[in-house]
Amino acid sequence: MFSTDTYKRRREVLQQNIQAKGILLFLGNIENPINFADNASHFRQDSTFLYYFGIQQPHLAAIIDLDENKTIVFGDEMSMDAIVWMGRQETLKEKCEKAGVVETRAYADLAIYLATAMSVKRNIHYLPPYQSFNKILLSELLHISIVDFKPSVPMIQAIVAQREIKEAQEILQIEEALKVSNQMHLLAMRMAKPGVKEYEIVSAIQNVAGSHNCELAYNSIVTINGGILHNHYKMNTLQSGKLLLNDSGCETPMGYASDLTRTYPVDKTFTPEQRDLYNVVLNSFEGAKAELKAGVKYKNVHLKACEILAEGLIDLGFMKGNAQDAVANHAHTMFFQCGLGHMMGLDVHDMEDLGEQYVGYTAEDPKNTKQFGIKSLRLGKELKAGHVLTVEPGIYFIPELIEMWEAEKKYAEFINYDKVKQFAHFGGIRIEDNFLIKEDGYQYLGPELIRTVAEIEDYKANN
Amino acid sequence: MFSTDTYKRRREVLQQNIQAKGILLFLGNIENPINFADNASHFRQDSTFLYYFGIQQPHLAAIIDLDENKTIVFGDEMSMDAIVWMGRQETLKEKCEKAGVVETRAYADLAIYLATAMSVKRNIHYLPPYQSFNKILLSELLHISIVDFKPSVPMIQAIVAQREIKEAQEILQIEEALKVSNQMHLLAMRMAKPGVKEYEIVSAIQNVAGSHNCELAYNSIVTINGGILHNHYKMNTLQSGKLLLNDSGCETPMGYASDLTRTYPVDKTFTPEQRDLYNVVLNSFEGAKAELKAGVKYKNVHLKACEILAEGLIDLGFMKGNAQDAVANHAHTMFFQCGLGHMMGLDVHDMEDLGEQYVGYTAEDPKNTKQFGIKSLRLGKELKAGHVLTVEPGIYFIPELIEMWEAEKKYAEFINYDKVKQFAHFGGIRIEDNFLIKEDGYQYLGPELIRTVAEIEDYKANN
Repeated sequence: MFSTDTYKRRREVLQQNIQAKGILLFLGNIENPINFADNASHFRQDSTFLYYFGIQQPHLAAIIDLDENKTIVFGDEMSMDAIVWMGRQETLKEKCEKAGVVETRAYADLAIYLATAMSVKRNIHYLPPYQSFNKILLSELLHISIVDFKPSVPMIQAIVAQREIKEAQEILQIEEALKVSNQMHLLAMRMAKPGVKEYEIVSAIQNVAGSHNCELAYNSIVTINGGILHNHYKMNTLQSGKLLLNDSGCETPMGYASDLTRTYPVDKTFTPEQRDLYNVVLNSFEGAKAELKAGVKYKNVHLKACEILAEGLIDLGFMKGNAQDAVANHAHTMFFQCGLGHMMGLDVHDMEDLGEQYVGYTAEDPKNTKQFGIKSLRLGKELKAGHVLTVEPGIYFIPELIEMWEAEKKYAEFINYDKVKQFAHFGGIRIEDNFLIKEDGYQYLGPELIRTVAEIEDYKANN
Repeated sequence: MFSTDTYKRRREVLQQNIQAKGILLFLGNIENPINFADNASHFRQDSTFLYYFGIQQPHLAAIIDLDENKTIVFGDEMSMDAIVWMGRQETLKEKCEKAGVVETRAYADLAIYLATAMSVKRNIHYLPPYQSFNKILLSELLHISIVDFKPSVPMIQAIVAQREIKEAQEILQIEEALKVSNQMHLLAMRMAKPGVKEYEIVSAIQNVAGSHNCELAYNSIVTINGGILHNHYKMNTLQSGKLLLNDSGCETPMGYASDLTRTYPVDKTFTPEQRDLYNVVLNSFEGAKAELKAGVKYKNVHLKACEILAEGLIDLGFMKGNAQDAVANHAHTMFFQCGLGHMMGLDVHDMEDLGEQYVGYTAEDPKNTKQFGIKSLRLGKELKAGHVLTVEPGIYFIPELIEMWEAEKKYAEFINYDKVKQFAHFGGIRIEDNFLIKEDGYQYLGPELIRTVAEIEDYKANN
């Protein structure tokens, strides 16, 4: 946990900033059953609960009563039976004191507290539930159907405004995660040889995280079919001539994530085609990075990255015409179907549970949810000092998309389908790092991880 | 997957044996969100769904219509959007054909099918849901409140009767899991040295599983405080003079589990006290094992193991009086608070989601749910050839229990509290292996894993 003052201050700021009256309700997570009730997944506390209360224990809830200026954590102390089975632990009361919360009540009292408040028509503010257990709980607590939830916009907005500006101690946590993740990536590079299975690498990098008492922040993508954007299949054998794409990060015991991607040959060196395409992505990465600073709209950074990709692809003969026109017409989405990046913090896609419209966009400049490509950009709004985000341009060859669009002659004035088709099974390339936005630029987070063709070939030659 | 015939035959047997009319409903599992909807835990299919349909894909359901002799799998084929993101995969239709199911329908059609059936008062049989998502789904499908579910006893009984008798190919799967688990345990023994962190061992053994494309079958218990029965805390540093208890197993890609425990010194050799207590547990293990065969009630095997524990503890001065009397009076539960074992198969506690009263007991000889100790025995009923189970006696020193019972003078005629108190922080010892029940005895499953004091000390001396 951070200091007691941290949690007290965070809650005070929230109370000061929120444009609302009533009660703020925070639901913690439970341990989700895998194949029967007692066989549960690794426990992961809800990130907002962690942010304001810091307590990593299942079956907790909390309220901040704005009208009465009271904070209460609801949860049960261990029974003697539980102590026999699980050992005596720090009491909930003690944990709450560390979070600066003096009042704790039994879990069952939450329903009573809320029922009393509702009986006098006080407002109960809550966040969008993402775990089914909490959907059921919320439905019971508030007497509303699961399909009728109305999460509190003022609560979401106040939390996003606070959580999106990272504290110095949070940056340290993210850099801690990045330190471990760098080791995960270097090990994967050393392991990447013909004959190795993708899952052997996934397992080994999970062990790097685990040996530092970290969890993977998300299911690692370790694949020789990098053209598949969210590829969790891991049964392939690495083959000479292929690229390996490794998108993996970890989270610290306190819950802070990292999110890194590197792509490199299974062999010791890139082929000329791999190198050329890789350098297009690298140029795009560097160009996007150079744009980062407070006041810039991330959507424009994304478009800049797309233009550099298009320029490179024109130079290599995959595209034709003018790069700016191509991007304005979305032709680059043949190769770059997704967004340039997203917020990062306590979640690898930070606060994604609270809603992209609040985290990544504003009411004045909402997300384009229709247009293929940009509709997958999770972050479009103006950057502020204190934002932490990823930059992750890529080039992906997707056979089904190539086939479909060629048949439709889609963007035919910008795409050389004859050349593209030859690369249909090339795979994909992504380069991803994490940045802190500053007033006048950015700070690269974590220890610098090798990235250029020369650096990678040099590392592979010597390891 | 097993052969197409396997799944067809299993479903045919179920249809023949079930004492019911109507529709059997099988709900598959989903990918459970960790901290937001798109960041999900490793997918684990429901075991009963796996057993009858073999398809490892989220968001599936199936029915066997007993009246119309029809089997249908409900699920959606991938959209083009999903193919772009996740790659083209085997279609659901193809997967179903491998399971011998010719009819597939859209997921949304399940609600229609069931509504039609309910409109003419046909019976819908379903199993107890354990994941919250399926509780919500079932509530919506059947128009019943989550608190009013009435799982089908005939369906549960027919499934238990079938799944509890393991096929030869299932035994091979369990032995496959045991082969990998043995490596996990040997690695942990080699790593167990003063200064090592518990989580480093957990992580390393998970990597052994992962490098064989296996998952952990449950959260590993790797602890120097073995007196805590379900101890998932893993932050301790191994210290000279302590024992390490390692309870861990893996599951094969097809979902079959293993469940093994070994306890050994952090140092190269046992202390005399450790050796003496260890040998009491080992004698109990050997004595229980010798009892295993079809026709024997497992409750009696448990009691036999308890008696041997009590005898040993009397010899060492922790207990006094007559061992049989002590066990009859439950005095041994000071040291052995739990049950001797449980069924194992597709779940590490096989079919625990279906209800212990059906899996471990019979209506004629139900579980004693009141008495401390025996109430934690998951399996009491008569053994049959084809059962697979664990044998896992132990001795656990639980400071809180010792303190409480001493104050109550509980079982004072059988317990030497003065001696026991000196061992309050000794920890715990468990030895656990997996067995197949045969008509005339048992088969030890998997490669034999070293177990005696001499074997362990020899292994530690040489590794």
